[in-house]
Amino acid sequence: MTLQDAMDRAAAGIAKATEMGVPQNIAIVDAGGHLLHFSRMADAWLGSIDISIRKARTAALFKMPTAAIGELSQPGGDLYNIEVTNGGLVSFGGGLPVTDADGRVIGAVGVSGGQVSEDVAVAQACVG
Amino acid sequence: MTLQDAMDRAAAGIAKATEMGVPQNIAIVDAGGHLLHFSRMADAWLGSIDISIRKARTAALFKMPTAAIGELSQPGGDLYNIEVTNGGLVSFGGGLPVTDADGRVIGAVGVSGGQVSEDVAVAQACVG
Amino acid sequence: MTLQDAMDRAAAGIAKATEMGVPQNIAIVDAGGHLLHFSRMADAWLGSIDISIRKARTAALFKMPTAAIGELSQPGGDLYNIEVTNGGLVSFGGGLPVTDADGRVIGAVGVSGGQVSEDVAVAQACVG
Amino acid sequence: MTLQDAMDRAAAGIAKATEMGVPQNIAIVDAGGHLLHFSRMADAWLGSIDISIRKARTAALFKMPTAAIGELSQPGGDLYNIEVTNGGLVSFGGGLPVTDADGRVIGAVGVSGGQVSEDVAVAQACVG
Repeated sequence: MTLQDAMDRAAAGIAKATEMGVPQNIAIVDAGGHLLHFSRMADAWLGSIDISIRKARTAALFKMPTAAIGELSQPGGDLYNIEVTNGGLVSFGGGLPVTDADGRVIGAVGVSGGQVSEDVAVAQACVG
Repeated sequence: MTLQDAMDRAAAGIAKATEMGVPQNIAIVDAGGHLLHFSRMADAWLGSIDISIRKARTAALFKMPTAAIGELSQPGGDLYNIEVTNGGLVSFGGGLPVTDADGRVIGAVGVSGGQVSEDVAVAQACVG
Repeated sequence: MTLQDAMDRAAAGIAKATEMGVPQNIAIVDAGGHLLHFSRMADAWLGSIDISIRKARTAALFKMPTAAIGELSQPGGDLYNIEVTNGGLVSFGGGLPVTDADGRVIGAVGVSGGQVSEDVAVAQACVG
Repeated sequence: MTLQDAMDRAAAGIAKATEMGVPQNIAIVDAGGHLLHFSRMADAWLGSIDISIRKARTAALFKMPTAAIGELSQPGGDLYNIEVTNGGLVSFGGGLPVTDADGRVIGAVGVSGGQVSEDVAVAQACVG
């Protein structure tokens, strides 16, 4: 993913978040999970900076939405407490992989700052 | 929040804790989550030093009581295992944001050393 | 500092880096050291992501250029090995505080990706 | 050391720092290196919060002034890079042990926020 592509995705997310009236943190990482772009909107929770970056990283490292991991990480689940690995993963909604025209994962976005459903909606706007 | 304001809040918390007969650790942070003041009463648990500071930081970074996060971070909840983010959050009671006359968050207090209900009562005494 | 202000500073830094032909990581934090905006240019070193963020955070937390700390942290210096504090500081050039019209520190920029002199030149373009 | 004793020492340090016109962070730990009291004066560097606590902890854990460790931790010295142990030590001036009437170490103070010589002067005011 290019920086320009990431900037366009962040702008789409900010537009959606502004429309929803929810200040968000938006992180975009490459396929290796390394940070490519980050934006924090005015009044967004400071604690969500780290969460947005971890959501994006988690989605990239496992090539799936963070919420899909959360379904398996509950008590009794196959991936119970996987969150403590990799220096700290996030397994609730708001992290989504980004794929190219061939379906290959080229990066991921992570959004944090609102209710989880709001984070997911903004992440979807970034994915496009 | 000024240091004098923090000292007054700590004194109010210590008075309450003394009245309750529970030795407490009381941490006060600014709006950015940075430590401003800390007091440990005689015989308070050493393990609660870190917890009180993390409670205050958590409440500041998310502008809400730590217990409100705990309601969402349980198994099956929207924010399951959010505690592993931000270098370690605390999501049970005892951390409360402090607001100014306009309702703006200017910092937070974190109290640890007793039962959670006791920690909350002392934190409330600090908030005033 | 507003997000728009940070975006403008990042754009100024990217323009300078492009002119110099050096791919850079550019991080911008608020006065509390919390990340506000980040951009990684194509082909910039992945190891410099973290360094750029730490440079910005270091400059904000001490309200001075990172290089000023490095002058004091050498063997025999007043602040020898200060880098191991605060979860890891960076004390070589490329982190600069940003001040408002009254000289008050409102945030900081951190640049990493080239020679230190190149990082400093890009950081200066961000500060303006 | 009692909390009241720590509060009195912090007050003495704040009085000295105010007289010197240097905003300081003042940390006081017990003989085990565990935080007992902390105060941050207005406009003190945020990066010095952590440093003051580490100075106090270092002085308590080794029962000597932090500067004495720094003399041995230089390149070629007996304790080269000891700073990376114990989760991060500080070996420049500003951390001093506190002893009782029998010369037994009962805790330590750590001061950070000014030039090292200023930090030491305030730490000495705390030790009394």
